[in-house]
Amino acid sequence: MALKVFNDLAELSIPEVESLLKLARRLQTKPEPQALAGKVLALLFLSPSLRTLSSFQAAMIRLGGGSFVISPDMSIHGLETRSGIVMDGVAAEHLREAIPVISSYGDALGIRAFANRVSLADDLADKEFMAMRELASVPLINMESAIQHPCQSLADWKTMDELGIPKQGGKFVLSWSWHPKALPLAVPSATLHMAAMRGMDVTVVRPDGFALPPSIMAKAEQAAKLSGGSVRETDERAEAYEGAHVIYAKEWASTRHYGDRVGDQKLREQLQDWIVDEPCFARAQPDARFMHCLPVRRGVAVTDRILDGPRSVVIHEAQNRMWGQMAVVYQMMGPGA
Amino acid sequence: MALKVFNDLAELSIPEVESLLKLARRLQTKPEPQALAGKVLALLFLSPSLRTLSSFQAAMIRLGGGSFVISPDMSIHGLETRSGIVMDGVAAEHLREAIPVISSYGDALGIRAFANRVSLADDLADKEFMAMRELASVPLINMESAIQHPCQSLADWKTMDELGIPKQGGKFVLSWSWHPKALPLAVPSATLHMAAMRGMDVTVVRPDGFALPPSIMAKAEQAAKLSGGSVRETDERAEAYEGAHVIYAKEWASTRHYGDRVGDQKLREQLQDWIVDEPCFARAQPDARFMHCLPVRRGVAVTDRILDGPRSVVIHEAQNRMWGQMAVVYQMMGPGA
Amino acid sequence: MALKVFNDLAELSIPEVESLLKLARRLQTKPEPQALAGKVLALLFLSPSLRTLSSFQAAMIRLGGGSFVISPDMSIHGLETRSGIVMDGVAAEHLREAIPVISSYGDALGIRAFANRVSLADDLADKEFMAMRELASVPLINMESAIQHPCQSLADWKTMDELGIPKQGGKFVLSWSWHPKALPLAVPSATLHMAAMRGMDVTVVRPDGFALPPSIMAKAEQAAKLSGGSVRETDERAEAYEGAHVIYAKEWASTRHYGDRVGDQKLREQLQDWIVDEPCFARAQPDARFMHCLPVRRGVAVTDRILDGPRSVVIHEAQNRMWGQMAVVYQMMGPGA
Repeated sequence: MALKVFNDLAELSIPEVESLLKLARRLQTKPEPQALAGKVLALLFLSPSLRTLSSFQAAMIRLGGGSFVISPDMSIHGLETRSGIVMDGVAAEHLREAIPVISSYGDALGIRAFANRVSLADDLADKEFMAMRELASVPLINMESAIQHPCQSLADWKTMDELGIPKQGGKFVLSWSWHPKALPLAVPSATLHMAAMRGMDVTVVRPDGFALPPSIMAKAEQAAKLSGGSVRETDERAEAYEGAHVIYAKEWASTRHYGDRVGDQKLREQLQDWIVDEPCFARAQPDARFMHCLPVRRGVAVTDRILDGPRSVVIHEAQNRMWGQMAVVYQMMGPGA
Repeated sequence: MALKVFNDLAELSIPEVESLLKLARRLQTKPEPQALAGKVLALLFLSPSLRTLSSFQAAMIRLGGGSFVISPDMSIHGLETRSGIVMDGVAAEHLREAIPVISSYGDALGIRAFANRVSLADDLADKEFMAMRELASVPLINMESAIQHPCQSLADWKTMDELGIPKQGGKFVLSWSWHPKALPLAVPSATLHMAAMRGMDVTVVRPDGFALPPSIMAKAEQAAKLSGGSVRETDERAEAYEGAHVIYAKEWASTRHYGDRVGDQKLREQLQDWIVDEPCFARAQPDARFMHCLPVRRGVAVTDRILDGPRSVVIHEAQNRMWGQMAVVYQMMGPGA
Repeated sequence: MALKVFNDLAELSIPEVESLLKLARRLQTKPEPQALAGKVLALLFLSPSLRTLSSFQAAMIRLGGGSFVISPDMSIHGLETRSGIVMDGVAAEHLREAIPVISSYGDALGIRAFANRVSLADDLADKEFMAMRELASVPLINMESAIQHPCQSLADWKTMDELGIPKQGGKFVLSWSWHPKALPLAVPSATLHMAAMRGMDVTVVRPDGFALPPSIMAKAEQAAKLSGGSVRETDERAEAYEGAHVIYAKEWASTRHYGDRVGDQKLREQLQDWIVDEPCFARAQPDARFMHCLPVRRGVAVTDRILDGPRSVVIHEAQNRMWGQMAVVYQMMGPGA
């Protein structure tokens, strides 16, 4: 499989995902330090990053290639994104030039661009990322956009495989967590889809006003149908965690008040008890795991004793970012690509 | 040819430039991912960058070596440049140490330092860059200084070769463009010289008050004499574009009001119609090309329809930055250097 | 020797240091551009850097591996360091996650974190660095902490060997220098220990109020006992420099007023004559050398004529940072590690 775009697990078949994971495990156990000799991964970060920034650079080095990083503050006074504009303001360069230029230096391109969190329809359509996708001349990796985060999903799938968490019959709880700010829908959407595609019984537990968008739920339901899994939403926490193999905490914006900061804040300020702590695991599987994509706010989304205890696999997930992404870049630039 | 300094195409002979371009084409078509194994390019950016920053890193990776990037904000409170000073202010390190140190870690050194745009004489003498040149202990690349930009010139020469734009008899128009700020003379000076050295008939078209400095014109005229080309300046736009194979847009400061921001602004604010658009091409060659070094302000220096249309080769030029620079670093650090 | 931690020369035996230096010289003269193929050095900078940042990146490239750099401004709103805190403020990520994650991407990890300069006891215990050390899952390099700077010490030892500066009988003067700010104790402490461990007769000359902490002096005395060297402190400048082979200038905080900015300032503002200049060398060895770890403030810690003259070996020292560190990373990740 020569991978041209890695944007959404839903664009791959289950065997294609399994094949990426198999390759990831092979590269993890049998290093190939010459596989990408002379190959370049161009990395464009329009939003901040720690894991993605480090793990992609490390992935390329482990395969004998390399990468370079561009962010807006490296250009003269930032990058313009609006189209049809007379650029007589601050920005001296437009993304319409920057992306073709950067991708012309790479054998593949990764782009990170967070949600604008103004219009839900725009963010669900991944409007900004899709506009950039058109400008890329080499294989493209979505390093988190308004609504996608396939690298996180691949890492989480791999992590659950390694922990022996069952596919069919495995119970996955995506649990909304409190956070002082209205965070994007990318990780919850991608995570829901990943768990459904993996064949698990997925429960999304979130307060009223934070239901995931119907289009996201419908897409996940279709994946579940194909894989033998299931998908549902609830606002009943105690019941939701019943029998869980995984509690996956994630903070996200109110979909009822999307783009309305005041409405979102008013709703969320009463929800500080939506934190994952040991009592949540009372009726879960005895060895149920805690997952989170990181960064996580200690004492806000989850307590220290969970994060520092044996249930937490957040570092394992983060490390799998690198191994999963090595498979992705190998398929894009390696032998046979 | 073991290259020790890459500062100005004028310091090379025409066969030396042709030889660099031949090497660039070879490396582009026959990768040599081990040629610079273990070799380090030190990159010092005293001014912001996107293309140069990415393309040099990519160039080193493609040849199996690597690079590191230093900019003043990475040191403690910036770098001092003035000599003979008691450093009891903010800056904790002087360029007199920083440059020898950085260059001692590399097999070659690239420096970017824009014009001060205070004294025209200083900028024409490339005073700041020349002071730094003395401090470098390894082969040195000018990554754009007050008055030079040889990497851009090499890329543009290569681009024109690939597009079949004639040398002798080719008509090259360097066309002043409006910009809200007074930009440096480096690219217009280097571009004029490059086209003249390539044997083309060069017309510089610019408004009154923006004539290129006589020393720059005289130097280009001498190059033209050797190559069979020619050089002239005019402020008549319609006539200037007549028969052009290339319209190369560039924004630069008023030389009449150099270092005088108010005088420059007063002059330039009436010149917003100096934008390249389709009518400029009315009397040019039918397949005349639009060139620009980027970054470019859309709707300011050139219209969207030109940039997005078939005449524009700006991405081609930018990509050739990488291939040209691969030849430069190969000559400095590769086999036989 | 498979090196697991490089934190303090005192944790190594003299033969272990000599063996690192021998390896450094071997790698300097006989390049091994494949030795660390596919290996990754993770670099976390919690404080600014120029030499360390460049020299580690260069070291990894020269051995065929690579590195990535993380600093707090790359994460979303910085990194939290306090433990047991409810993270509802600005920082979105805690070091308790960041360090395990970053180290999981590397085969070794380097951390730089300056002294807090609030509590002398905390800084002497290297409290912050030791907390981070617990979180690292791979071999760890101290890239300068509150009280250590082993990379600088290794480079300085190598530099003195190359200059033929005697071990037994060599006279090393660590000379306090003026600086507008209260700088950390890391370099003076590490340097004192290094010179004592090398067998030299070490004199620390500093004004009243700037005595090095007794624990630091005692530790160095013990090292001197083993190596045949000696250690003493004085505030008599002229006498201190008598017969010196090396005058090593360094700025540091008042230990009497540690953490008390006003008290420190009041004391230091009268000490601007503590600058190293040619008269200091009047009674030193004729070919006595001037050393400094850089960055150095010209005209403040040392005069231009010393820095630009034949006594100064500061660039030599800085370059040896790279060769020394190549030995360190080779021992941590190379063949046989």
